[in-house]
Amino acid sequence: MTVACLDLEGVLLPEIWIGVSKKTGIEKLSLTTRDISDYDELMRLRLGILRENNIKMKDIKEVIATLSPLEGAYDFLKRLQKVFQVIILSDTYYEFAMPLMEKLGSPTLFCHKLEIDDEGFIADYKIRLKDSKREAVMRLKELNFKIIASGDSYNDISMLGAAAAGILFCPPDNVIKEFPQFPVCLNYDELYDAFIEADARTS
Amino acid sequence: MTVACLDLEGVLLPEIWIGVSKKTGIEKLSLTTRDISDYDELMRLRLGILRENNIKMKDIKEVIATLSPLEGAYDFLKRLQKVFQVIILSDTYYEFAMPLMEKLGSPTLFCHKLEIDDEGFIADYKIRLKDSKREAVMRLKELNFKIIASGDSYNDISMLGAAAAGILFCPPDNVIKEFPQFPVCLNYDELYDAFIEADARTS
Repeated sequence: MTVACLDLEGVLLPEIWIGVSKKTGIEKLSLTTRDISDYDELMRLRLGILRENNIKMKDIKEVIATLSPLEGAYDFLKRLQKVFQVIILSDTYYEFAMPLMEKLGSPTLFCHKLEIDDEGFIADYKIRLKDSKREAVMRLKELNFKIIASGDSYNDISMLGAAAAGILFCPPDNVIKEFPQFPVCLNYDELYDAFIEADARTS
Repeated sequence: MTVACLDLEGVLLPEIWIGVSKKTGIEKLSLTTRDISDYDELMRLRLGILRENNIKMKDIKEVIATLSPLEGAYDFLKRLQKVFQVIILSDTYYEFAMPLMEKLGSPTLFCHKLEIDDEGFIADYKIRLKDSKREAVMRLKELNFKIIASGDSYNDISMLGAAAAGILFCPPDNVIKEFPQFPVCLNYDELYDAFIEADARTS
C-alpha cells in the first residue's frame, strides 16, 4: 500500500508568512529561507517583527482565516485520497495551519508547534523533530508502506529522496536545476498522473 | 502535538464481515475471532465460503457500498480532527474499507491488503505488518507525537497500551472485565470528552 506524502505550503496552500505579510502590509514578513538561509535567524526576525508591531497570535489567526487553499487543491486532494493514504508533511506550525486544514477536509498533518506567551505573543517555536519530513518517510517505510512524495522546495528534497518516488510541484527554477533527478509537475492534473505513474512503476 | 489513533470497525464503521454476512444471507461469514481465535484459520474459512458461493470481490464491493458509517461517526470524526491529527489503525483490508472511507471524509487509514486472482476471487490476504496497530503507535512516538488511542476489542489492546492514554469504545463485557485499566466510553460525546481529558492529563 502506498502513502502519498505532500508538502503543504506551495503545494496545497499559499505561503502563509507571505499571506500574513500582504495582509499586514509588513514587507519584511515575506522574507523566506531563500533570503535568510538560517531558519532560526529567520524565525527570530519574524517573531521580533510581530512583537514590534504588536501583532499577537489572535491577530495572525484572523489574517490566516482569510486565506484559502490554492485553486483546485481541495479537489486534487479528494481525488488523491481515493487511491492513496495521504499524509501532509510540513514545516509550518499547527497554530497557523489548522484553520486552513478544515478547508482541505482535515487531512492528517505532521508539522511543528508555536509557544504563545501569557500576553498572546508568539514567544518561541518548537521543531517537533529535526529533518522531520524525511524522518516521517523513514518511519512509514518501517510500517511497510511505499511512499510517493511531492513538494516544491529545498526543505522537501530529503523527503523526496527517501521516498520510492519524489515529484517536484511548481518548484522555483533553481530547485529544478539543482535536482534534475525529480520530475516536475506544473498543475494538479499532471501531479495526479505523476503519482499514479510512479505508483505503477515502483514496487 | 497529539495524534488520535482510532480503530475503524466498531468505532466508526459497523463490522464489515457481519454486514457482508447479513447482506448475502451466509451466516457463517459472521463468525469472528471471538468464535475462531486463530485469525488465519478464520480468514481461510471466509475465503473458502466466498469461493464456494461464487462470491467475487466485485460482489463484496457492491455489498459494502450499501453499508454506512455508524450514526454520528462522521460528525465525531470532524470534531476530533479540529483538535487532533487523526489516523485510523485497522485490521481490515483496503479493498473493503475504501468505499466507506469516503463517507467518513477520507481520513488516513493504515490497514492490510487482499490479493485478488485472475477470476476476481479473493485469493489471499496480506498482513502489512505483525501487530501493526502497536507498531504504528511506536513509530509515531519516535516522530515525537503523543498518542491517544481508542478501540473496542482484543486486537486494539496492544495499541491502547502503547499509547499515552487508551480508551475503550463500546467494548464487549469480557474486554471490559479483562482490561479494567482502560476507561470505557459508550457514545461519541463521551469519547470526544475522554480524548480531550486524556490529552490535558498526559504530557
